[in-house]
Amino acid sequence: MASAGKLQGIFTPNIVPLDARGEINEPELRRYTDWLIDRGVHGLYPNGSTGEFTRFTPEERRRIIAIMTDQTRGRVPILAGAAEANTRETISACEYYHSLGVRAVAIVSPFYYKLSPAAVYAYFKEIADHSPVDITLYNIPMFASPIDVPTVQRLAEECPRVVAIKDSSGDLPHMIRMIQAVRPNRPEFAFLTGWDAALMPMLLIGCDGGTNATSGIVPEITRKLYDLCVAHKIDEARQLQYKLTALFDAMLYSADFPEGFRAALKLRGIDTGESRQPYAAEQHLQMETVSDTLACLLAEEGFADEPVGGCPTGAQKVDPEQVSRIVQGVLAELKQRGLA
Amino acid sequence: MASAGKLQGIFTPNIVPLDARGEINEPELRRYTDWLIDRGVHGLYPNGSTGEFTRFTPEERRRIIAIMTDQTRGRVPILAGAAEANTRETISACEYYHSLGVRAVAIVSPFYYKLSPAAVYAYFKEIADHSPVDITLYNIPMFASPIDVPTVQRLAEECPRVVAIKDSSGDLPHMIRMIQAVRPNRPEFAFLTGWDAALMPMLLIGCDGGTNATSGIVPEITRKLYDLCVAHKIDEARQLQYKLTALFDAMLYSADFPEGFRAALKLRGIDTGESRQPYAAEQHLQMETVSDTLACLLAEEGFADEPVGGCPTGAQKVDPEQVSRIVQGVLAELKQRGLA
Amino acid sequence: MASAGKLQGIFTPNIVPLDARGEINEPELRRYTDWLIDRGVHGLYPNGSTGEFTRFTPEERRRIIAIMTDQTRGRVPILAGAAEANTRETISACEYYHSLGVRAVAIVSPFYYKLSPAAVYAYFKEIADHSPVDITLYNIPMFASPIDVPTVQRLAEECPRVVAIKDSSGDLPHMIRMIQAVRPNRPEFAFLTGWDAALMPMLLIGCDGGTNATSGIVPEITRKLYDLCVAHKIDEARQLQYKLTALFDAMLYSADFPEGFRAALKLRGIDTGESRQPYAAEQHLQMETVSDTLACLLAEEGFADEPVGGCPTGAQKVDPEQVSRIVQGVLAELKQRGLA
Amino acid sequence: MASAGKLQGIFTPNIVPLDARGEINEPELRRYTDWLIDRGVHGLYPNGSTGEFTRFTPEERRRIIAIMTDQTRGRVPILAGAAEANTRETISACEYYHSLGVRAVAIVSPFYYKLSPAAVYAYFKEIADHSPVDITLYNIPMFASPIDVPTVQRLAEECPRVVAIKDSSGDLPHMIRMIQAVRPNRPEFAFLTGWDAALMPMLLIGCDGGTNATSGIVPEITRKLYDLCVAHKIDEARQLQYKLTALFDAMLYSADFPEGFRAALKLRGIDTGESRQPYAAEQHLQMETVSDTLACLLAEEGFADEPVGGCPTGAQKVDPEQVSRIVQGVLAELKQRGLA
Repeated sequence: MASAGKLQGIFTPNIVPLDARGEINEPELRRYTDWLIDRGVHGLYPNGSTGEFTRFTPEERRRIIAIMTDQTRGRVPILAGAAEANTRETISACEYYHSLGVRAVAIVSPFYYKLSPAAVYAYFKEIADHSPVDITLYNIPMFASPIDVPTVQRLAEECPRVVAIKDSSGDLPHMIRMIQAVRPNRPEFAFLTGWDAALMPMLLIGCDGGTNATSGIVPEITRKLYDLCVAHKIDEARQLQYKLTALFDAMLYSADFPEGFRAALKLRGIDTGESRQPYAAEQHLQMETVSDTLACLLAEEGFADEPVGGCPTGAQKVDPEQVSRIVQGVLAELKQRGLA
Repeated sequence: MASAGKLQGIFTPNIVPLDARGEINEPELRRYTDWLIDRGVHGLYPNGSTGEFTRFTPEERRRIIAIMTDQTRGRVPILAGAAEANTRETISACEYYHSLGVRAVAIVSPFYYKLSPAAVYAYFKEIADHSPVDITLYNIPMFASPIDVPTVQRLAEECPRVVAIKDSSGDLPHMIRMIQAVRPNRPEFAFLTGWDAALMPMLLIGCDGGTNATSGIVPEITRKLYDLCVAHKIDEARQLQYKLTALFDAMLYSADFPEGFRAALKLRGIDTGESRQPYAAEQHLQMETVSDTLACLLAEEGFADEPVGGCPTGAQKVDPEQVSRIVQGVLAELKQRGLA
Repeated sequence: MASAGKLQGIFTPNIVPLDARGEINEPELRRYTDWLIDRGVHGLYPNGSTGEFTRFTPEERRRIIAIMTDQTRGRVPILAGAAEANTRETISACEYYHSLGVRAVAIVSPFYYKLSPAAVYAYFKEIADHSPVDITLYNIPMFASPIDVPTVQRLAEECPRVVAIKDSSGDLPHMIRMIQAVRPNRPEFAFLTGWDAALMPMLLIGCDGGTNATSGIVPEITRKLYDLCVAHKIDEARQLQYKLTALFDAMLYSADFPEGFRAALKLRGIDTGESRQPYAAEQHLQMETVSDTLACLLAEEGFADEPVGGCPTGAQKVDPEQVSRIVQGVLAELKQRGLA
Repeated sequence: MASAGKLQGIFTPNIVPLDARGEINEPELRRYTDWLIDRGVHGLYPNGSTGEFTRFTPEERRRIIAIMTDQTRGRVPILAGAAEANTRETISACEYYHSLGVRAVAIVSPFYYKLSPAAVYAYFKEIADHSPVDITLYNIPMFASPIDVPTVQRLAEECPRVVAIKDSSGDLPHMIRMIQAVRPNRPEFAFLTGWDAALMPMLLIGCDGGTNATSGIVPEITRKLYDLCVAHKIDEARQLQYKLTALFDAMLYSADFPEGFRAALKLRGIDTGESRQPYAAEQHLQMETVSDTLACLLAEEGFADEPVGGCPTGAQKVDPEQVSRIVQGVLAELKQRGLA
């Protein structure tokens, strides 16, 4: 699957199922790969942020791509996360992923250190000059050095290998500025959004698709939203975007990323295992609540059973103010007992 | 003009023309008011951020509303910025503006101090309980205490006087979350966006209109974009949004806000006078460049003459890299001369 | 008290007591002024951030200075906050405060709009060129446009009227950079810190004093810390700084600024009245807890009685984890009852 | 060198010299190790941020520690950066470094993802429960998930293996809060600052030492400043801190970190080679200027020769305003030629 068409549609940044020992669960990863393709995603994007690429070793990252290209066998294109410790290691990963037949690699901007635009440019230029496979820039300013508009423009003009950008900033005007700066000279350059909460407006404003974590959990919804936007069915799309935003928010803000997504995926029948990032005791408790909330959201759409305790109706939902009053009450009681 | 319909369409946050002594230029303000109404804006929004409300005295703010309500004579609704030093002064301003017949007031969240959600709630609740006129909340987190979603929901549920929110964050998912939290119970509550660079996606995602600084400069374009979005003419709207974003960026980022807008308005024949915020010598020079850039952008759309020196074509535009090289060159030369 | 010596020592940014109708409580303000002078502060700083200058009208701000200069009668120098809506109004305030005999005015950098360094420079330059009284720049980047080091240097070099900077950033290296940039050419220029949590290191690194909100509550402690630092009694100073930081944190982070300071001042016998910023119901509850916490901290130092319920000993203090467990427990119980 | 004394003094986070092929230059790394020890640093800290640990492979990180422990042979204690992809890999590195005889390891808080305090706690707890060697927490909020005060306190109380924290925030009040929260129960727990621009105030406020990048370039100065602070020679220490801050700023802000430090180290005769982070053409030019600036600063202290072109005296220094005027001039000229 190394054809040169424009990157388009929904690419799933997949979680990697782990077994009881914390190792890659290959059979479940293969089953999950099929499950996603069967539900209509346009492509797969392993070794992304949702895929916790930083928590695997270089060898494991290669094995993940090998398993998924083997399992996919060209049914959908694969965008392989290829960022390694430095440009030499990254170029070596690009060569290996190219040999496996991926459509393109995605390379996150340098992280940990916050680099200047010139240094971000130099990093991608060095890789693009030596990679045998097409490259997608990956801009995620909340985690890595930002890739600004002049840098995207400069790379698009100088590097034919750079064929797309995935942008997870969720910033609409920024996307508009990038499209205006690049598309006139590189009409086949693709713009993908990684911020599911704004998928509909991003597509309407000119994006070609998205790499969306929700598509790993409810591929049916994310794919349908894409189709509605492409067909300009604005009113239907808006209603679905509202639901997707609510689900995205619940998974994103309920726990340390990407644990909410992992919990939701379990509810859909994929055995994701435990994260490599350990939990504190209070987080175990919290995840039970999260899991029930997600079960209720998924049950509304017919994707999961309601939790044993049932789901709240609108009127019964706990609001923040209520929680605040509860906490004040508890503190007041503790105080009377001389504990606070 | 105190009818109770939903706030809808484009409200112009107008600049206040000043005379040579720095006083309100009443004749020009009246002329500008007519000019805007003639070009199709749905309403006017004096004493907003673009209107530099903080740089006028309390008495001047009242005079601005008095002049504009008198000049408008009910042709379009007026949304009057009414924030004063504290709730008592603000309520007093609300009473006065009500007596002048404004459709509603707009009240920015408390600024200078960064307040908690509970304090932001208490501030608006106090005002809403005593105002005789409808209130629009004004959220502009880059300048004032943010109004979060639970606070908007709480105020919408408890205060019938609160009928709208103007949000200048430019954050699409935030707008989606607010609409979802409020609209089911308050279908007539209006959502207005103050971020012109994202006007099209905001309208498509469910906003009722905008308070947009560009509509004070190119009311024809902002109004047309609104109409295209309402008619779901997506492809035409997108092209116009690209142009509006470029113009908005040029006015917003070229100088201290709102000086770029003031310079552009002069090019359209409104004598805005000088800002009350003094310029440094280097800023005077910079504004000449800004003015020429804006003249070229406006000339492209037929709204202004090209500057005397002509406008660059695409190929001749100075890019940031070129400027960087120039600076390095100059520094190198200075160095040789022993100056750096 | 208009002598031209260097500004030095601890200047108190005082709260303004209000009466039951929310008006300035002149007798209590006079009593508070005496109370502070009697406890050893080197100067007074009305109309500062702690003094809630933005919540008073222009007329009230003038009255506050008039009352306090009259009451002080030259016993200590007064630094009068003089920022108004624009440079013309500010210069007019400077003239009035000069006529009252203040030692200097303090002018906060323009707020609401975030201005560029050039605009910040132009603002202060315009005022400094027309003020009849010495000026202290006031840098508080969390609330207002930052005043960067080159701007301080430029103003210090061009404006003899600018004699000091009050910096509330709490940033030690920033203070070092300012001192290095200005002191060689203006040895009498004063550097005052507004960040009590770092008062000791600021004084040791070269500051001349501070405008410290704690000195309005526990002037005895803040003054003693100043004296220990000046005498290079490092070990004693460190122990006192630890206590002052704990007290400052408790007042600053326990409630919306400056409500924690207001609550503490009541415990010391000054009748501050209620804030002009209204409280939500949950904030009233919260302030009771805050007040007890502050009473315990003050009681430890002998400045207040223990609250009726007594104070916790170290072992009984509620820690964040405990609160978290309580909340989880309450939520779990609500859930069982079908409420969450 | 595995004695259990408190960590104290200046630990150098060393750069790793590379050869022409970009590989670790072992002979030069050995020579640099000796050079540092001979100039009085109290310990060494390889695989820190200055040491670019993220740009090396796991195998290379181990080799760096192996070379330096071998070369040091117990003359000074070694603090080995041990963060790997996940807790299992990190614990494995701890075991290896323990076998090499390091005094302790330093483990940066999880980066890329921004984790909650509970997750940060769980991460360190898991490692501390399985490490055979003492652990220093490493808090660097500009690059990694922050370690807040309650988390430091919790880890200090539960984990005897956690014996120190290195904090690079430069936040004095934060350091005071940590010391107050931990020291009463763990008097031997060490607090090290990584922010050279505030070394003196940090030491005076209670820190036990620092891991300071300047000590890798001018170990003589950093060590002397430490000694002056310990001896409470405040006035001498202040003057030296001013110089160190100027040098630190020049190295830190002149180029992408840690390139300014690399350039300065070359001036002191250590052949550091080229960074693994590629340069853009404009960065090569910039580094020449940086190098000359650093040469002048070092020459002032007698640590390097003046650059060929000589050093500016105070009066000749290029100021930002001058550069701004130059840029305006160049742009005006380009404009006349129809290029801008």
